[in-house]
Amino acid sequence: MQQQDFPSSPLGLHRVIEPAGALPQAAWRLDPSPELWPDEARIRVDRLNLDAASFRQLTEAAAEGPNGTGLAAALRGAVLGIVAERGKMQNPVTGSGGMLTGVVDEVGPDSPLGLAPGDRVATLVSLSLTPLAITDGLARWDGRSEQVPCDGHAILFGRSIAAVLPDDLPVPLALAVLDVCGAPALTSRMVRQAAAGGAAPAVAILGAAGKSGSLSAVAARKAGAGSVIGLVPAQAEADLLTSAGLADRVVIADARDPAAVAAAVRAAGGPAQVTVVCVDVPGCEGGAVLATADGGTVIFFSMATSFSAAALGAEGVAADITMLIGNGYVPGHAALALDLVRAEPGVRRIFESRTAEGDGHAG
Amino acid sequence: MQQQDFPSSPLGLHRVIEPAGALPQAAWRLDPSPELWPDEARIRVDRLNLDAASFRQLTEAAAEGPNGTGLAAALRGAVLGIVAERGKMQNPVTGSGGMLTGVVDEVGPDSPLGLAPGDRVATLVSLSLTPLAITDGLARWDGRSEQVPCDGHAILFGRSIAAVLPDDLPVPLALAVLDVCGAPALTSRMVRQAAAGGAAPAVAILGAAGKSGSLSAVAARKAGAGSVIGLVPAQAEADLLTSAGLADRVVIADARDPAAVAAAVRAAGGPAQVTVVCVDVPGCEGGAVLATADGGTVIFFSMATSFSAAALGAEGVAADITMLIGNGYVPGHAALALDLVRAEPGVRRIFESRTAEGDGHAG
Repeated sequence: MQQQDFPSSPLGLHRVIEPAGALPQAAWRLDPSPELWPDEARIRVDRLNLDAASFRQLTEAAAEGPNGTGLAAALRGAVLGIVAERGKMQNPVTGSGGMLTGVVDEVGPDSPLGLAPGDRVATLVSLSLTPLAITDGLARWDGRSEQVPCDGHAILFGRSIAAVLPDDLPVPLALAVLDVCGAPALTSRMVRQAAAGGAAPAVAILGAAGKSGSLSAVAARKAGAGSVIGLVPAQAEADLLTSAGLADRVVIADARDPAAVAAAVRAAGGPAQVTVVCVDVPGCEGGAVLATADGGTVIFFSMATSFSAAALGAEGVAADITMLIGNGYVPGHAALALDLVRAEPGVRRIFESRTAEGDGHAG
Repeated sequence: MQQQDFPSSPLGLHRVIEPAGALPQAAWRLDPSPELWPDEARIRVDRLNLDAASFRQLTEAAAEGPNGTGLAAALRGAVLGIVAERGKMQNPVTGSGGMLTGVVDEVGPDSPLGLAPGDRVATLVSLSLTPLAITDGLARWDGRSEQVPCDGHAILFGRSIAAVLPDDLPVPLALAVLDVCGAPALTSRMVRQAAAGGAAPAVAILGAAGKSGSLSAVAARKAGAGSVIGLVPAQAEADLLTSAGLADRVVIADARDPAAVAAAVRAAGGPAQVTVVCVDVPGCEGGAVLATADGGTVIFFSMATSFSAAALGAEGVAADITMLIGNGYVPGHAALALDLVRAEPGVRRIFESRTAEGDGHAG
């Protein structure tokens, strides 16, 4: 297929092979050929960052194979097979992908992304929609981490998003921050809106000692929260959060226990005008609803959120609250999150204590 | 267990038998005993209205039995078995319930619901959280409809919601309207907010010729929409919607085809500042995202919505939009919806043409 045969789409529809008409994320197979349409850019890839859910599934599936010694080989084979078949790294079981880093190789004349060859970037759109080809057989990956050294190329569309990696932060830290940067940005926006309406709002963060949670906590404070209530599941997390100094009140409760969450948030000065769910386990909808004041807002960032549990749960208790699906894109989200990490040593400590874990959103 | 042994909870936690600590909706089993706690009310039930997804599942499961002649008996047995085991009518496969009608029998001294014995009501909280006992063996149900004649009792908690049925509308019509009354109420609120910010907003309704869609269309117009774009899947629906006069523009597209939806809405004057998804099939997230202007809002009412498809879909196309989980509760929602049906003959015609179908939200 020639790039001149038909116009490209900023959404990447021109790269969808099957099924026709699908968006790249929903598509089964993309065309990862390296030639660029005029509004595209090509990245020389050096690292894939598989999302936590996908890496866990691949590891479990590989471990069920004939013996443990071949785990790394099995994982390499699984990822190579997916990318060869689909033209992108989208785990067919979890539906999720991750992100990648690399160096900009070529930029089409009509690309609106503002990138230049030689820029070192991370993609902020999911691997599940990014055309990708791998050329080194993943020979340098030992299979022990979701960060996968890799040689190959990837394509960015006109509406894809990439962030130039900062010089002043270690790459693994910057990657982990960018992975969850939608959460603090949307939290900031909603807290600002709530504060504009009157008194400084109380903000509850469920899972406040995690990566997206700690960033959201500090974003809430800077956006005008009257108090930040950090909810965590256990004493060790409470100690971590307390020493980081990111919350005005730290409470311990199982986020899956609605009555316990509601009681803990109330005891700490709630209910909250804004509640942010950053706990990556199913079943946190009820607690979030009950912890939130009438007229308030819940932002669900966890990909384990059930749409129907949230909708019917709020209806079932006559809760007049607004419930947001945590959109991972907010203009300026990458710069905001990186600045929060630079300004708040407590956030950085939490990230550095959690670099092996994954609570990321960008699936 | 005596009602005086411990205080009741307005959420009904005191009626949960297992697992302890769950909200009634998430619980496996409730206590449906007829004695009231002080803030409860008891309904003498005359009709269950199973939700469409549950009725379909029960019918298909019953039809797989030994022969077709026993279908009604098999359905009766299935519903009776669920209610006997769980103390509520919550389909274990779909997780959903429906609603009921009946006459208020007794009201506890502390009930905040404003009901009086003799009031004829419909519940606006799901059967999936409503304690229920059936006493007539469902002998009058022929199994052909999701409306189930029934004798028994049900319990309303302090925070349950019920609407007194209006005298001036047929009960089946009123029931069908109340089943989806959250959609027009939240649509009205969001359109009003958008209109307050400046120019009258363009509003797109996906599935505008359905029950929740037609009500949302007329609610949007009354709330100040500059134009209402109704999207439907086929010419027959377009004719129905056009003759009802509820939309300024009627367009035909498959709601699961993102590019087609975006193109159709744009051709009709979009993108929309507010997009309302009332199509009860999976896969409509991408089209809704693409049909919506930057800074705009999507309200997902369909219970077929995928949280992750919406979150990653918006992120994947860098769409700076707000996405709402359609909360079925908004104060005043029942009265608003009934008034819309009274005032708009076009809505009433759509409902009367669709009384055998189900696109309801209250699962």
